[in-house]
Order: sequence, then C-alpha cells, then structure tokens
Amino acid sequence: MSDTVKVIPLGGLGSIGKNITAIQYKSEIIVIDCGMGFPDEQMYGVDLIIPDITYLLAHKDQVKGIFFTHGHEDHIGAVPYILQQINIPLYGTRLTLGIIENKLQEHGLAKDCKMHSVEPGDCIQLEQMKIEFIRSTHSIAGACCIAVHTPEGIIFHTGDFKVDYTPIDGQTMDLERIGELGKQGILLLLADSTNVERKGHSPSEQTIGKTLRRLFEGVKGRVIVATFASNIHRIQQIIDASIKHNRKVAFSGRSMENITKVAKTLGYLDIPENMLIPLEEIHNYSNDKITIITTGSQGEPMAALARIAFGHHRVIKIQPNDLFIISASPIPGNDKLVSKVINELYKKGAEVIYKDIEDVHVSGHAYKEELKLIHSLTHPKFFMPAHGEYRHLKHHSDLAKEMGMKQENIFILQDGDVLELDHEKAAITGRVRAGNILVDGIGVGDVGNIVLRDRKHLAEEGMLIVVAAIDLETYSIMGGPDVITRGFVYAKDAEELINQVKAVATKELEMCLAYQMVEWYILKANIKKVVEQLLYEKTKRRPTILSIIMEV
Amino acid sequence: MSDTVKVIPLGGLGSIGKNITAIQYKSEIIVIDCGMGFPDEQMYGVDLIIPDITYLLAHKDQVKGIFFTHGHEDHIGAVPYILQQINIPLYGTRLTLGIIENKLQEHGLAKDCKMHSVEPGDCIQLEQMKIEFIRSTHSIAGACCIAVHTPEGIIFHTGDFKVDYTPIDGQTMDLERIGELGKQGILLLLADSTNVERKGHSPSEQTIGKTLRRLFEGVKGRVIVATFASNIHRIQQIIDASIKHNRKVAFSGRSMENITKVAKTLGYLDIPENMLIPLEEIHNYSNDKITIITTGSQGEPMAALARIAFGHHRVIKIQPNDLFIISASPIPGNDKLVSKVINELYKKGAEVIYKDIEDVHVSGHAYKEELKLIHSLTHPKFFMPAHGEYRHLKHHSDLAKEMGMKQENIFILQDGDVLELDHEKAAITGRVRAGNILVDGIGVGDVGNIVLRDRKHLAEEGMLIVVAAIDLETYSIMGGPDVITRGFVYAKDAEELINQVKAVATKELEMCLAYQMVEWYILKANIKKVVEQLLYEKTKRRPTILSIIMEV
Repeated sequence: MSDTVKVIPLGGLGSIGKNITAIQYKSEIIVIDCGMGFPDEQMYGVDLIIPDITYLLAHKDQVKGIFFTHGHEDHIGAVPYILQQINIPLYGTRLTLGIIENKLQEHGLAKDCKMHSVEPGDCIQLEQMKIEFIRSTHSIAGACCIAVHTPEGIIFHTGDFKVDYTPIDGQTMDLERIGELGKQGILLLLADSTNVERKGHSPSEQTIGKTLRRLFEGVKGRVIVATFASNIHRIQQIIDASIKHNRKVAFSGRSMENITKVAKTLGYLDIPENMLIPLEEIHNYSNDKITIITTGSQGEPMAALARIAFGHHRVIKIQPNDLFIISASPIPGNDKLVSKVINELYKKGAEVIYKDIEDVHVSGHAYKEELKLIHSLTHPKFFMPAHGEYRHLKHHSDLAKEMGMKQENIFILQDGDVLELDHEKAAITGRVRAGNILVDGIGVGDVGNIVLRDRKHLAEEGMLIVVAAIDLETYSIMGGPDVITRGFVYAKDAEELINQVKAVATKELEMCLAYQMVEWYILKANIKKVVEQLLYEKTKRRPTILSIIMEV
Repeated sequence: MSDTVKVIPLGGLGSIGKNITAIQYKSEIIVIDCGMGFPDEQMYGVDLIIPDITYLLAHKDQVKGIFFTHGHEDHIGAVPYILQQINIPLYGTRLTLGIIENKLQEHGLAKDCKMHSVEPGDCIQLEQMKIEFIRSTHSIAGACCIAVHTPEGIIFHTGDFKVDYTPIDGQTMDLERIGELGKQGILLLLADSTNVERKGHSPSEQTIGKTLRRLFEGVKGRVIVATFASNIHRIQQIIDASIKHNRKVAFSGRSMENITKVAKTLGYLDIPENMLIPLEEIHNYSNDKITIITTGSQGEPMAALARIAFGHHRVIKIQPNDLFIISASPIPGNDKLVSKVINELYKKGAEVIYKDIEDVHVSGHAYKEELKLIHSLTHPKFFMPAHGEYRHLKHHSDLAKEMGMKQENIFILQDGDVLELDHEKAAITGRVRAGNILVDGIGVGDVGNIVLRDRKHLAEEGMLIVVAAIDLETYSIMGGPDVITRGFVYAKDAEELINQVKAVATKELEMCLAYQMVEWYILKANIKKVVEQLLYEKTKRRPTILSIIMEV
C-alpha cells in the first residue's frame, strides 16, 4: 500500500469510555473525540482516566484538529489534559464546544484555545482530508456523525447515536445524507456498539415526556427530578411538564447549572423568562409550584441527589409529599449507590419513581434494528465496530456478518491497533502506544500499577509497622521495637497480639545483632518474615508489613 | 398485653442477606434462619458479615432451636459462627441440613451439632409453640414456609419463595395447606419482598430446560454451564439436557462439588450411574461428549469460571467451539465482574450465552402477582414485609394496602425492632441489639468502623511515613527523618517530593527540639501537619501520614 489511510483508535475499544480515534492520511492527522474514562473498582483513589497520546505527540505538527461528535464526558472529558500537551484546534457544534469551553475555563485554559463551531452539514476542508458533520440523534443535543472524505474513500464514524424519528427539537438524524454517502460508496464504517445486544428499536425520547406529564398530575408537593445534566432534551421535557402544571423550575448541582446555562444561552434549551428561579428562592413558592432538576441520578455520594437524601443539601430538605423522579438508568456498577439513595428517600417519607417502577428513561444508543438501518444505508466496504467492551464489538461484528458482510472485511481492533486501508484493501498493520493515564488529584500519570497494587493490599488487609533503632557499634537495640497498625485490627482489641509481635520482632532483632547480621535488607526481611508468620497464624490475614530499622 | 408473641428480626431487613428472625412466646424462643450477609464495597477486606446475636445469648436457655426455610447462604451461612456461641438444635429439610453439615465439617463443628431433619408437612411441638414446615418452591430444592402456631395465633413466614406451578421435581408449593391455615386465621404474615417491584408472575424453572435443550443442539465443542451450586433444579435440567445430547457431566468448583454430592446422596439430584465423570477425565472424551457444570456465575475472580476465562484453571483450558452458558443473573454490584469474564471468554474465541442474549435464568423470588396470591390465601390480620431493602419493604407494604389491608396493621421493621402481638393487637414495643459483625480471616468482630475508615483512607490515598530518632538528653536528631511511602506515588517518580518532605520534617523537628517542645503528641502532630500541608499543596492528595519518633 502506498498512500493509505490509517485509522488508529487510541481509546474506546474494549471498555466503555475514553473515546478517541486518530485518522491519518499522508502527513495529515485528525482526531475524532477526546474523552475521559472512568476508574474501575480496582483503581483505588483514581479520579479519572485519560488516553495515552504518545502517538499524537510524536506527530505533533501533523495533527490538524480534534473533531467532536458530541459533548458527553467520555468524548470530551480529556480535552483539558490533552490541550496542555498539544494545542490544536477544536471543531464541534455549538453545544459541544460550549460545554468544552466551560470545562477549559475551570482549568484556566479557555483563552489560548482555538475553537471552531460548526453546524450539522458543514464541511471542514483540510489539505488532504475533508471532514463533514452530519446531524444525528443522541441523548444530548448537537450530536453528529462524522464523515472523513479521503482520497482513498470515505470513513464514516457514527459517533454515539440512536435513530429517533421524533426527537424533541424536531431535528431528525440526516438519514438522507447518510444514504447519499452510502450510494457514493463508504470505504469504512465505524459504528456505536453499546446496545448491540438489545433487540428491536430504542424508544423515542418523546415517550418520556408523556410519562412525565402523567406523573406530574396531581402531585401536592415538590417534584424533584434527577437526570444527566447533559441530556438537554430530557431537561426540556421536564421543563415542559412543569409549565403545563404551573411549576417554577430551579436547577441543583454544579454540572446541571453549568450545562443548562450554556444550553440556554446557545438556544438549545427553551425556558420562558419567568419560569426559572434560583434554587435559594424555592421557599418563596408553595411546594406544588416547584420543580427541581438535579444531578446525582447515578447515586454519586457527592452529587446533589445523594446530599438531599442523606440530609446534607444546603437548600433542599425532604418534605412530606415530595415526589422524586430518577430519570436515568444506573450505569453498570452504580446499582447499589442508586439503591442506597432510593432507600433513604423512602425512609425519609418521600415518594420515589425510578426505572423499575415507570418508564422514566430511554437509552441514547441504537438497538439492533437501528444498527441494521445504518449498516444498510452506509453499505460500507469495511467495518470496524466502535464504542464498546469486547462482547459488544463481537456481537456487532456478528450483526454485520448476518447482514452479508464477509468476515475478512470486519476488523475488531484493540486500542492502539493501526487499521490501514486504501480504496480496495484493509488490514491491521501495526500498533502504536495506547493506554490509560490515571489522574489522581493534580497528579497525571504518577499513579501506576505498583501504587495501585499497594493501595489494594492496604485496602484489603491494612498495615502493620515495626520500627526499631539500633546501634551498629555496640550491636544493641537502642529503641523499640514499636508497633503501629492502621486498618488491621483495632489496637484496643489486639493488645495481646501487638505484644506478641513486639516479642518476636525483639527476639529476631536480638538474634541478628548477636550474629552481627546487620545488612539492612536481611535485617528488615527477617523481621518482616517472623511478624508475617505470627500474624497469619493468629489471624489468617496478611497486612502490609513494614519493618523500619534506624541506625543511631 | 400480658402473654404476647414477640417477633424480632435480628437481620434481613433494610438490606439483602443475613436473614435471621427470633420469635418469642413466654420463656420460649425459636429462630428462623441464620444467614450471612455480604460486605459492600466500603467494607474493605471483609470476608463476610454475620448477625449480632447478643439478644439470643442473653436468653440462652430459652432458645429452643433454629428452623431453616432453605439452604441458601443468606439463610444458613452464619451457622458455624453462631453455633460456637450457642449450641442449639437445628431443624430443616434433608438438603438444607446436608448443606449445613458440610459447612460445619469444614469448621470442625459437625460432631457436636444436634440436627433434626424434617419433611414438608412435619410439625415440631415445643412446650408452648408448634413449628410447622410447609412445602414451598424456590431456586433451591427442599424449601419450606414455616408456620409458627402460638397460643395467640399463627405466625406465617414464607421464607424465600416463588409460586412455580411446574417445578422440576413435581413437588408444588402446598398452597392448599396455606389456604387452610388462612381459613383458620393467620395472625401475622412475614413475606419475601425481593421481587415486589416486578410486575406479573415469575416464569417457571421449567422454561430454562427448554432453552437449554435448544442451546445444546448441534454444539460441536464442550458445553460449560455456570450456575449457582445450590440451584439443584437448574443443575438437574443441565444434566437432563446432557443426557439427551449424549454428553457426560463433570463438576467444577468446590461448592459445586460439595453441594451436588450432598444432593445426589440425599436423592435430590438424579444422575444415571455412568453419566458423571471426574473433572480430570474430561480429556478422555471428545469435546462434543462433555458438559461441565461450574461455579463462578457471578464473575467472582477466584471461582472456577473466571479462572477458566483468564487461563488459570488447573484442568479446563478454553478450546475452539467451547460453548459457555452463564445461567444466572448478576447480583447488583457484580455486573462488571461478569462482563469482564464474558469479554475474556469471547477474546479467547469461545461462544458465550448469557441473560442478555437468551432466557437462561429465572428468578427464585415471587413477583407481584405471586405475592398477591399469598396475601389472598393467608389473609393475615397483621403483615410484616420481610427480606428486602427498605424500598422493597415499602412497596410490599403498598401492595398489602392495595389489597385492602389497613396501614395500621402493616409493620415495616428495622433489624432489632420488637413487634409484639396478641390475638387482637400488634405494635412495635421496643428494640434489642442487632447489627453487623464483620468477619475477616479468622477474626470475628475485630474489624470495626475505625479499622474500615483507615482501610478506606489507605485505599484512596495511600500512606507516607516519616520516621526519626531523637535523643532527649541532648535534644538532637540521632537518625532520620526517613520517608517511606506505600500506595502514594511511585518513589522513583517522586524523588524530589520525598526530599522536600524530609526537608520540612527536619526543619520542624529541629525547631521543636530547639524550643525543647518534646512532648510526644506535639512533636508528632507538628511534623504531620507540615508534611500534610506540603503534600496537599504539591499533589492535592491527603495520604495517611504517620510520624514515628523514637527516643534513643
């Protein structure tokens, strides 16, 4: 292959989150999305994950811009970290860029940033590639598919999407244009695999509006709805139901306030002038005239909903007749957190509606039949399932096969794989560096596997420290051994055990000194060993043991 | 109230697990079930939870026995721990006692134990109370409801149940007897609330058999089915499908081997003589003649299925054409673990069937319509929802009200509440001690809140230790300060930071010594403070900081 297109996912395959894909033709690289990932339960203390962009840094001059499909965290969240390493132009619809700008302001990065807002239908012509934004529908406004026109053919990336024939803003997915591109010939399709395991067609966002209006009916207290701050259409529907029932609306939660402000300013959210009130003013109205829209639908302990439930919210205290609606699904892993919040709300006497009780949420990702539609319309030569764990990529590959695609034209990639194509062939031809950079506090990348392994061990078993001071001239113990524990046993319960530890440590230390075995590592290892044996025998636990010997 | 019945849940309300209920009449106490609970994600390193039975210990002579509804861990798992404190007779059906006996043997407790096996329909006559076992249906064989006949009336406890009209063993729930008792008059109903949020009627266990037989059809490789070891009926159906398709069956996983052995011995499991082979012998047969039934359906990292997936299983290595069936639902909190295993199996080239793909699991707990049936048949005077988080208890209470029960006759209890009844009145009249005893290793109850708080802090932020030796006669530093970290930052990346820590610690220590401020707690606190400030400023993290000062 001489002049080929390379498609390189630097994130987003094999796990949900951290979506970022590079497309390279000759000396031109474009990036689609730049998301953050979410730490799993083994990544103790890690705040978020960003992609390793070593590859982009190595080709800094060739990178022409990041093109965003939409404004969800897993597609934009890494921007502040990446822009500090490589300042390149950002392209996206107004809402997407508005949310990014907000984020950059928080990091003090907004003013140096080159942002170019686009409308669906716009094309950005680079030297060799042309990037076309095509309107799509998703659980956030302003979502687009991206078609990359290269001399070798069109790369079509769906972004996250569903096919909603009746979207809230009336702006349907531009299926005609997708069909037109399909007719012209699409070289490679990258498509959202999140819901490939779900049969049928996802319900329209509209269906939620009907449910909400019914639920608002006759409620005597406040209505408090928790949902995703970025789901502007959902928020619009909550506002519409509030208008119909003559309720003022207040927002609660930082991201809710930020994103709705951006959306309102940019015209994505339609709120009559006198409808919106500051949260502090809710007490000026009777409860049946108030709707509160809040963050925390995933049960996150620090978000507004959990703070309300557990009585820590600054303004909102639960009152009789309050109706809570959790208009979201728990993301896998969050079920228990959400359940805790629901239990607490019920205990405090509130009414609670959630997905198990009423249809108050629809997914933003295409089900099987919608995916088939996109495969039919695009009719690509090659296919690469995107956005999913391996099981989803596998099932999406099966779906393509069912639709007549040949196995050899389907490519399940891992992050870092290089898919190289020209107008007639495609193959995985190499790998570049890709992976997780962990962010903890302001430290980016300084928490690695060893640190995590230590945290895990500390978390599960706690620790015990034996400390002693010795004099190497007289071979005698000058201080200690003292024993300190954290997270092992509560010291009061364990006085006898601690004394036994001191005894074995003293005995071992004296023996080592008697034989003048005072090499540091031997001393430490020997003491660690006898203490370890004693503790395992007595408790069947293996805390982290540190033996600290000081020479004085 | 003079001669009243007291019903005291010592566990099982407000969270799933740890089911145990005491019923007291005059000087006679009986206990229904004695289960263990499962640690949540905040209980770092805790292996399991057992109920606090202070109340039973305080009335040791009055406790006449534990009566088991069925053999699931959350109903029997605490027995070995409880029997060490109070050796009382155990009553249950043969399978339930068989599983308990196995457990007691592992703890070396079997021989002192008084076990009395019962058949459904049997009554145990105590001095004042009579305990009747009534056949029910659930996801384990040998499940019973328990009716406690007291002079004040009948207390009816459903245990865990579903109404399966076509159970695998043909032994249907004894609805006639329940109706008969209802006609006589039931004073108090305690009923399973787990699935009260699900509409309709749970599907029969039979439906799984059909699906399994279809899935086995034409499989060229081995079939490896993961399910709960205690779900004897499910295992029977997997065996039946294997017989039909001419496959030998092997068991994998300790609890699978143990429980199936008990079930086979007691006649609950019907396996033709030559069908069952030891796991080691699977390689003597061609792959299409082998079924393996394994543990690990919850994705537990140490269980057989995960070990197979990640290539750590002693005997079973994944081969092309292997079909894995995960015949279970992930319990809330386990979704990610299960998903990891599924991804890994797919990556290794196996085929995988799970609940999102096919109906390979049904719940063992009654849905709404089944609960209504039980309420109708028992028609109790008073009702106490059992077995659920608060949201489930609340919804079960709502269901009872919908069926015409008065609010004042329904009691949502918390663990430890005392519900006191006579033949016409009921009220919550007090509280006894109840709660969680945490088991870690062989330590029972020595891991408390302080230890968990420390573990959590260590898990999220790691730790840093400053250690120094001083001479209090000369007020001088004799050794250190040295710095040791675990789970904070990887030391190589952080040399500069560690040196800064040493510098501020040295400076502070010198100052304290110069001013002869050598009270232990002041010295330690001052050093901790300056180090804490430095670390937060540089990293925005707050590791556990220990300052250890030795006098030499």
